[in-house]
Amino acid sequence: MICLGIDPGVGLMGYGVVSQDGDRMRALDYGAVATDPGLPLCERLCEIYSAVARKIEEHEPDVIAVERLFFGRNRTTAEMVFQARGVVLLAASLAGMVPYEPKPSEVKLAVCGNGAAEKPQVQGMVRCMLGLDETPRPDDAADALAIAITGLSLAVFDMAGRAAVR
Amino acid sequence: MICLGIDPGVGLMGYGVVSQDGDRMRALDYGAVATDPGLPLCERLCEIYSAVARKIEEHEPDVIAVERLFFGRNRTTAEMVFQARGVVLLAASLAGMVPYEPKPSEVKLAVCGNGAAEKPQVQGMVRCMLGLDETPRPDDAADALAIAITGLSLAVFDMAGRAAVR
Repeated sequence: MICLGIDPGVGLMGYGVVSQDGDRMRALDYGAVATDPGLPLCERLCEIYSAVARKIEEHEPDVIAVERLFFGRNRTTAEMVFQARGVVLLAASLAGMVPYEPKPSEVKLAVCGNGAAEKPQVQGMVRCMLGLDETPRPDDAADALAIAITGLSLAVFDMAGRAAVR
Repeated sequence: MICLGIDPGVGLMGYGVVSQDGDRMRALDYGAVATDPGLPLCERLCEIYSAVARKIEEHEPDVIAVERLFFGRNRTTAEMVFQARGVVLLAASLAGMVPYEPKPSEVKLAVCGNGAAEKPQVQGMVRCMLGLDETPRPDDAADALAIAITGLSLAVFDMAGRAAVR
């Protein structure tokens, strides 16, 4: 099973692709897509959309997970990020998928067993679970891998639930 | 010159298409697209995106105007609407267009000559400027027509500016 995790953003959007085979998880791809702040918002949204659509086409994930967002103090940033999140969800939907939308606390819980874990703990666990030599950079990529790991847990949980019903 | 105006929303998105030929403006099409609150957000975003893309294909507008939004008290609604606005901007961008993004006060100013005009005044002016027998319903459609009229004004203003520079 393969999951594409997305950490939505306009200036920098993190993505991570994780495969799970039994107990073994592996990072197939990760990174961050930067958009030029000098471009009109609609063109930056277009780049984000195209990057997500490309990753879906490239890896054909079984599951997509897009982190839920919360407003910080900066409204302008929040507005931009929610608009970006909209095009990420659209890219998933146009590929025929309904993404999981874990909250940040659910990502921390899935990766660290603690919904209030600190960022370095999450990054350390991501590195360990995926057998990576170094913590993925930038932070957005590490976050996206954590989101992908969460998507896989949620999918396994859903499948177990459906199996129990049968 | 033809302008597609969009009043972004998830539950109800208003659209209005206005043509201008000299001093004469005409409403070519208007209405509102409703999405089912029982569907996952990503599917509702998909419907909104498809509706905008369809209107662009149908009317081949020269100009697109998408109203800027401001947060109300309800954060959940604001989050949904900004995500919807993202897919509207994307639909414009994928059609090769950079939309105007007038603020609500700029729409009121363009239509009524008063940036603090009340909604009934704006709706009355829209009806009058477009020679309609009745005020368009729902409100979202009337708002979208006002946004389209604003888009036409901004485009005329831009063209005059460019002509003056030459």
